[in-house]
Amino acid sequence: MKKLVVLMALAVFIVSFTDKEQTKIQEKLFEKEVNELLAKMTLEEKVAQMRMFHANKGIELDENDKLVLSDDVKKRLRNGIAGIKNPGEHYSPERSAILNNQLQKYIIENNRLGIPTFFVTESYNGVDAEGCTRFERPIALAASWDKALVKKVYDVMGREARLRGLHLTHSPVADIARDPRFGRMGEGFGEDTHLTTEMIVSAVTGIQGDFDGLKSTHIGAVTKHFAGYAQVLGGKNFAAMEISPRTLIDEIFPPFKAAVQRANTLGIMASHADINGVASHANPWLLTEVLRNQWGFEGYTVSDANDIGRLHYFMKVAETPEAEVEMALKAGMDVDLYADDAYALLPKMVEKDPELEKYIDRSVKHVLRTKFILGLFDNPYTTAEDAKTITRNEKAKEFAHHADLQSIILLKNENKVLPIQQGKVKRIALVGPVLGKETEEYFNEVAGDRFSFVAEKGYNLTDGKMAIPSLTPEADCKAGIEKIIQSAGNSDLVLLFAGGDEYTSKEAFFNGALGDRDNIDPVSYQDELLLELKKLGKPVVVVYKHRRTLSINTFAEHADAIIDCWELSEFGDKAAAKILFGDAVPSGKLPVTVPRSIGQIPFHYSQKEINYKKSYLFSDFTPLYPFGFGLSYATFNYSTPVLSDTTLTMDGKITVSVDIKNTGEVTAKEVVQLYIKDLYGSVTRPNKEMKAFDKISLKPGETKTVSFEITPEMLAFTGLDMTKKAEKGAFDVMIGTSSADNQSVRFYLQ
Amino acid sequence: MKKLVVLMALAVFIVSFTDKEQTKIQEKLFEKEVNELLAKMTLEEKVAQMRMFHANKGIELDENDKLVLSDDVKKRLRNGIAGIKNPGEHYSPERSAILNNQLQKYIIENNRLGIPTFFVTESYNGVDAEGCTRFERPIALAASWDKALVKKVYDVMGREARLRGLHLTHSPVADIARDPRFGRMGEGFGEDTHLTTEMIVSAVTGIQGDFDGLKSTHIGAVTKHFAGYAQVLGGKNFAAMEISPRTLIDEIFPPFKAAVQRANTLGIMASHADINGVASHANPWLLTEVLRNQWGFEGYTVSDANDIGRLHYFMKVAETPEAEVEMALKAGMDVDLYADDAYALLPKMVEKDPELEKYIDRSVKHVLRTKFILGLFDNPYTTAEDAKTITRNEKAKEFAHHADLQSIILLKNENKVLPIQQGKVKRIALVGPVLGKETEEYFNEVAGDRFSFVAEKGYNLTDGKMAIPSLTPEADCKAGIEKIIQSAGNSDLVLLFAGGDEYTSKEAFFNGALGDRDNIDPVSYQDELLLELKKLGKPVVVVYKHRRTLSINTFAEHADAIIDCWELSEFGDKAAAKILFGDAVPSGKLPVTVPRSIGQIPFHYSQKEINYKKSYLFSDFTPLYPFGFGLSYATFNYSTPVLSDTTLTMDGKITVSVDIKNTGEVTAKEVVQLYIKDLYGSVTRPNKEMKAFDKISLKPGETKTVSFEITPEMLAFTGLDMTKKAEKGAFDVMIGTSSADNQSVRFYLQ
Repeated sequence: MKKLVVLMALAVFIVSFTDKEQTKIQEKLFEKEVNELLAKMTLEEKVAQMRMFHANKGIELDENDKLVLSDDVKKRLRNGIAGIKNPGEHYSPERSAILNNQLQKYIIENNRLGIPTFFVTESYNGVDAEGCTRFERPIALAASWDKALVKKVYDVMGREARLRGLHLTHSPVADIARDPRFGRMGEGFGEDTHLTTEMIVSAVTGIQGDFDGLKSTHIGAVTKHFAGYAQVLGGKNFAAMEISPRTLIDEIFPPFKAAVQRANTLGIMASHADINGVASHANPWLLTEVLRNQWGFEGYTVSDANDIGRLHYFMKVAETPEAEVEMALKAGMDVDLYADDAYALLPKMVEKDPELEKYIDRSVKHVLRTKFILGLFDNPYTTAEDAKTITRNEKAKEFAHHADLQSIILLKNENKVLPIQQGKVKRIALVGPVLGKETEEYFNEVAGDRFSFVAEKGYNLTDGKMAIPSLTPEADCKAGIEKIIQSAGNSDLVLLFAGGDEYTSKEAFFNGALGDRDNIDPVSYQDELLLELKKLGKPVVVVYKHRRTLSINTFAEHADAIIDCWELSEFGDKAAAKILFGDAVPSGKLPVTVPRSIGQIPFHYSQKEINYKKSYLFSDFTPLYPFGFGLSYATFNYSTPVLSDTTLTMDGKITVSVDIKNTGEVTAKEVVQLYIKDLYGSVTRPNKEMKAFDKISLKPGETKTVSFEITPEMLAFTGLDMTKKAEKGAFDVMIGTSSADNQSVRFYLQ
Repeated sequence: MKKLVVLMALAVFIVSFTDKEQTKIQEKLFEKEVNELLAKMTLEEKVAQMRMFHANKGIELDENDKLVLSDDVKKRLRNGIAGIKNPGEHYSPERSAILNNQLQKYIIENNRLGIPTFFVTESYNGVDAEGCTRFERPIALAASWDKALVKKVYDVMGREARLRGLHLTHSPVADIARDPRFGRMGEGFGEDTHLTTEMIVSAVTGIQGDFDGLKSTHIGAVTKHFAGYAQVLGGKNFAAMEISPRTLIDEIFPPFKAAVQRANTLGIMASHADINGVASHANPWLLTEVLRNQWGFEGYTVSDANDIGRLHYFMKVAETPEAEVEMALKAGMDVDLYADDAYALLPKMVEKDPELEKYIDRSVKHVLRTKFILGLFDNPYTTAEDAKTITRNEKAKEFAHHADLQSIILLKNENKVLPIQQGKVKRIALVGPVLGKETEEYFNEVAGDRFSFVAEKGYNLTDGKMAIPSLTPEADCKAGIEKIIQSAGNSDLVLLFAGGDEYTSKEAFFNGALGDRDNIDPVSYQDELLLELKKLGKPVVVVYKHRRTLSINTFAEHADAIIDCWELSEFGDKAAAKILFGDAVPSGKLPVTVPRSIGQIPFHYSQKEINYKKSYLFSDFTPLYPFGFGLSYATFNYSTPVLSDTTLTMDGKITVSVDIKNTGEVTAKEVVQLYIKDLYGSVTRPNKEMKAFDKISLKPGETKTVSFEITPEMLAFTGLDMTKKAEKGAFDVMIGTSSADNQSVRFYLQ
């Protein structure tokens, strides 16, 4: 009986989401309640609502599941606290709930006004806590080009977080990643503004349960890093940013603006970086003028870890800690994450400068409002039993697997080597340095008695040291290649697991760790491994796993087929096996352009038209794979697009339609992509920009008509006068299967 | 007798220049004369003063040295003309003078008001015309770090140009080149704002004969490309630019501002590129607000070739040719270079819009003023005999050689293999793909009977096709390497001439040519060539010639010594020989940072401090060679810098002094470099910036004290409020032998 209830609950939380987008602008919710409470607060209590610390020390359960707090933690809580990061992260969902309920109770009972706190996590590929469902990374989710799917994935995350007693997450990442040297590029949704915007809206509405879920079943999203963080120079974490105001507004801001206006994100986190010299944590234009005055944001802003403190000792834009506090506070930074020498100084500073209190009040209101929206004053607790039974249940795991299947991209399929044909192929070698521990198990499970396997990882890419890994020495790689060649010798087909891993692409944290690269070639002799395998005379299929874009020229030239998995869920190899064996049809598309070398940067498809006038000496200028590219086991035929009218008026709309036919032999999905090129503008214009897409399913022989609306809003850009609007003139609309393969028709905006 | 006069004239023109800098701001010179003339002009005559065409068709001398003009040219001249580009460029200096005198006379006599024209050239490494002295390229001149030398080089250019009847040059290039993918990087003075600024002031004052020379002996400079042209994205010619206003003002503008305010450049040419979307040829902020209103520029502006026309058909920021004309004219673009469908349309456009004529008048005044300053209304002619006897005479050639000697950079000198020791070394092999035709001759001349030579070029880097060269096929390179190895076999030491040539780095012209690269590794197996040579067991010294920065990792690791010549004068190998044989001591310093790979960009030394906080995974993050680096045959010892005061006031100045001792055994020159780091700023600050340098000569054992003044002006930058000023606080001043090797003292601005 209990099981049935759980399954029903899960069924509800999986099927109840619709694609409808949030349209209500953020409102001044709970204004009366917030003002009444604020009026009762002391300065110390106010400042406490602007600070957040990490639960990694002094917050534990004893053997009887009773909360034990250190004196330091108790001291931190005596005036209340805005939030605590990651409480219970290393406990099971059930024990996390038990801990968080007690912790919340302690806090409420031990601050004068009984103000509850929020517990905060991160969740880019699942809630970052023990026992939660591990989904694929955002860059892989983006490869699904499936808005409803992404919303559902984040909905599961939101529910699993709330069940264990959490209320907010410092996710999702709305950064536009165009430099694959950046170790964090896989934390976002790729290079494109429109794709990222749609993914962000899906993620935020999903995790927040369409906003209505915030009061009990879901958690608040804190969209980050505002703004432009993936634009750090050289792809280096913590480096400066150099970006024009026009590009910032037209290409970097839209996902954040949509997070605010379409998805009602509860919070916004600022970026480590500066924008053209101005530290993002002390930028009043960014945090107040744009975010609040222009976009109407009523949520709260939070610093990235220690970044208010970093204004002084790292960014060096504040001569003293006091100066940094004043800059951040006045700019519009509400909550100080972690620092003990930043907003902690506020009470003393107010003694000298009472005017500061009005800025403090502004920030505290944003925090209190968030707590009211999250229902924390009514019912701040969760149910441990639900946390135990619903978190990571079969449905959730099945859904993580389903999402993987939608995201795998077929990059190459020479001579239709995929799907692997039963009979023709019997024995398969699973080899290579990114082979997983559980791979053979999943492959056996999916294959049944169709295929048999031999597995040989051969070697690791690095020595596996987390902070500063070293590449595996040449001799060890060569020995590993030997082992692999021997192992693959008597197979009919080789599956080479190659690309990158968690040591070769990651965040370069502040404490000396490295994660960025100046080169995007595959490391540790993987090209050589492939070439050696090819000498065996068997088909070699690359199962490509990675966290950053790599210049896989050798894979592209010599592999018989490539499936691009990015980093899938905890069940990823099961999905790979299904795709490889033909039990599922690939339908992912590249969320990035794949270059031939790092020397081609910038290479994102939507650069200015004038950037495409000149090629380079001695090299092929085209990308290795274009943005939006991905093959299928089916083939699709596109008709020429047809416009409802070749004239669009400034207050009108027109429709463009195209017929897509499945000319293959299997039911398959296709991502239909619409690009627009503005032929003339008051400023130089992009070569093309994606403005709409749709993922459809087609049976063999079936034809569907896909229609897109075109509105002047889709054509708007920041012109010579710095206002964002559409300019009259000719436009080409292109519809097709990728950014490089589409048909064009022209219309005129009048 | 005649010879004596010539030598005296030359002596005067070589020794008469001083280092004093221009300080008078541009003035409204000849205002009365200009206004009177303008009042008499018809609209057609005015528009003619805003156009310039190329002399490549229809302007010739017949066998009796009589001018022959085509009907088309006569038609172009009937209302006068602003200027003509490159008349007589393929004739000797004497015949050029004969042609230009007749052409000027024809023009004066065939336009109603008798307005003379100016004849325009280019002269980045000598006047771009037959028979003139060919100097080293600007990037090599920059490597001399010698302001007086550069001024004298440009003075010779200015005189040689005027002697053949020319009046203006579309030079020098004030762009800051930080992306070695850009094929034109060698046309400027390197990566650094201060070094480029000083070089530009030297070049402009030199070519203009301290401005006073303009009326008879020198020509006007047209400083280009305004502004930021070397910042084209991807290093691709004609690509877009993306740069923050703050960087533009602090790092890109200063050489242009100095060209206007300190050197009184007669003209400014706009850049092909846009700035953040706004085409530079139609940017009123750039061409009028900054250039004229802020800087007080009273000279004339000229388009780059066809760039007004290109606003429509290439940049696509103008829907029609008429729109482009209006945009450029109103923005402040005075003269249309080459286009027949741009300013040519103005007379018809004024019929419809008479208001345009006031902008036409504004531009025409700038052009007429230029012609008055150039003395063209008084004496527009030159003396053919002087052109013949003075141009490229022995003194000029000797001076070109002298300049080369100051510019060669010693990058490596393992075991003091250089200078090559007579006796120990007898037979020298001159080998490699950038070996010149005249190399052996110069080396023999310099060596006398000290050394003997064998020469073997082996192969060429490319097939030598100018527009789109192809790399020499591997087999041909390998065959060439074989020949070289055999040739070098019985030598005592190998001089490997390696790097790049005119086919591997050049301007990617509009008509389909390529010149930029996505990779900066040496091409065509030069690394392999070096490694093969090293197997011979002899010392291998690389004579490194190139037009762009290359990632010469293999040279740096395996060569015994490297002299970096960039591209020297027509006598360059003579200077290389003198340096190699110890007849001269190297004193050049790198005007760029040399990276290990293109993946390190941006790598210029003056990046924000925060850009240096993180290294890359799996690679060495340091540059291969730092900015300002260069060895000597002597060694120098620097004392700790001493400040006159550790406190600087906003209207004061302090002095920093350092003792430098020559601890070696030869007289040698050293470039003493001063860098400043602002420890805190209202915006993120550079890691360090060079703010002064001095090149001194020291005898063995000699000590000199070098002092630099430090003023608040040197500390100014564009702060949070977008005004450029120094901010109070602590500064480190570093003095030393390169950007990476210096000693620091701290002072405080109060």
